[in-house]
Amino acid sequence: MTEKPDFAKGNGLIPVIVQDVTSRRVLMLAYMNETAWTRTVETGLAHYWSRSRNALWLKGETSGHVQKVHAMYVDCDADTLLIVVEQSGAACHEGYASCFFRRFENGAFQVAEERVFDPKEVYKA
Amino acid sequence: MTEKPDFAKGNGLIPVIVQDVTSRRVLMLAYMNETAWTRTVETGLAHYWSRSRNALWLKGETSGHVQKVHAMYVDCDADTLLIVVEQSGAACHEGYASCFFRRFENGAFQVAEERVFDPKEVYKA
Repeated sequence: MTEKPDFAKGNGLIPVIVQDVTSRRVLMLAYMNETAWTRTVETGLAHYWSRSRNALWLKGETSGHVQKVHAMYVDCDADTLLIVVEQSGAACHEGYASCFFRRFENGAFQVAEERVFDPKEVYKA
Repeated sequence: MTEKPDFAKGNGLIPVIVQDVTSRRVLMLAYMNETAWTRTVETGLAHYWSRSRNALWLKGETSGHVQKVHAMYVDCDADTLLIVVEQSGAACHEGYASCFFRRFENGAFQVAEERVFDPKEVYKA
């Protein structure tokens, strides 16, 4: 039987840290439920649970910016995942390589990098 | 006035991803409330909110394994932090450099590295 993280503590959801295999940058934090975990294991592509849309979500299903899983780690409490991925395109829906594109400097969060794509071109109505 | 992350969405708590400035490894996931955030900004040492102990927590206050903050980033939704730290000793209370010391392989989570310290020696009664 396949082992799995502990989904019970977070009411069925666990936080998932996503790191780029090449740049080693942290790309985003997302959440998985057990179905998202199973789909990720079966397909090798990162699937999450969208808390805002209340829906299973293949990362990149709209943008094409899929995440191919290279490795998955669980933490000491078994309730948080770290997945190392090969990111197509960029992780952030705002067009940046990482969702963490604002750095805290001089008491404020300042955009610290350039966009990789134009969100208006990628997410068309 | 100093800007701060959005603590409202998570009932006063935000998840904080901690990355090592040298190895670039992800060390742990912790949580901050607004007081922990303010203390971290003021002291340059990572402070968290312990959800199990319901208490403010200077990382390393027992073990000496403090985290000196090099950079802090906020994500696109302003409700998750990434902090890049210089880690003294090791991050994980189980004695490993990172809390993510178990890798998913052949359907199970397998310990993928050696301990850096002996928890019994560091956390004495």
